[in-house]
Amino acid sequence: MKTNMEDTLETFQLDERLARDSVLVTRLGLCELRLQNDSRWPWLVLVPQREGVSELFDLTPLDQAVLTFETNLVASALKEITAATKINVGALGNIVRQLHVHIIARNEGDTCWPGPIWGHGTPVPYAAGEKETLMKKISGAL
Amino acid sequence: MKTNMEDTLETFQLDERLARDSVLVTRLGLCELRLQNDSRWPWLVLVPQREGVSELFDLTPLDQAVLTFETNLVASALKEITAATKINVGALGNIVRQLHVHIIARNEGDTCWPGPIWGHGTPVPYAAGEKETLMKKISGAL
Repeated sequence: MKTNMEDTLETFQLDERLARDSVLVTRLGLCELRLQNDSRWPWLVLVPQREGVSELFDLTPLDQAVLTFETNLVASALKEITAATKINVGALGNIVRQLHVHIIARNEGDTCWPGPIWGHGTPVPYAAGEKETLMKKISGAL
Repeated sequence: MKTNMEDTLETFQLDERLARDSVLVTRLGLCELRLQNDSRWPWLVLVPQREGVSELFDLTPLDQAVLTFETNLVASALKEITAATKINVGALGNIVRQLHVHIIARNEGDTCWPGPIWGHGTPVPYAAGEKETLMKKISGAL
């Protein structure tokens, strides 16, 4: 594992599938914050900018603490702007092995409620302008 | 929210469904560590012993840090004893609102692979002695 933060950032390369399925909202201290291209749920993804990390516990203790901070910051902001019933947070990685944390706003009666959303059906793209509006709201709430 | 830790521990009451669906392995600094009564996957649950907390970001910053520590400790131990392909970590809470974190050992070809396991099918109880063996292994690896 690289210990020099700049070296690690330099070599970090976002997984191709994450890049295809989501769009960059902003960069936080550790993570890229991305919005999933799927309007069925307000669905954010945090990707620590660290190369070769798959499990949460593969991060350094400091990175683990920062990821927790960023996860809770984003989850709290998402709850605030959506007034969701429940925020779902998950790090699965069975398909995409690059460590990433899902943060999803869930509401009673939404698609899949109360089940998990991962792997369900086909993504529904946002209508023109909707994604940008949501991204602005998220950035504003952080 | 109570600020006195002993008061909070005293008033903490485990959700009835969590109590029914899982068994206590041990108590860590913050959480009850429980094993789900479902042999389809090695499936642990951490429940912070705090009353009235539903979202991760409802915990105090200190509790958030401790929960991260305990999650990664348990996830790493579970990976070690199962040699699983991937550990899945999730805090959903759409059904049971008391904050709890799932930590599940996943393997290629297991039930639901590579999808999420929550809400899938009917739990398969452990055979006699199997649960105790797994609980001992987990406790030993912590």
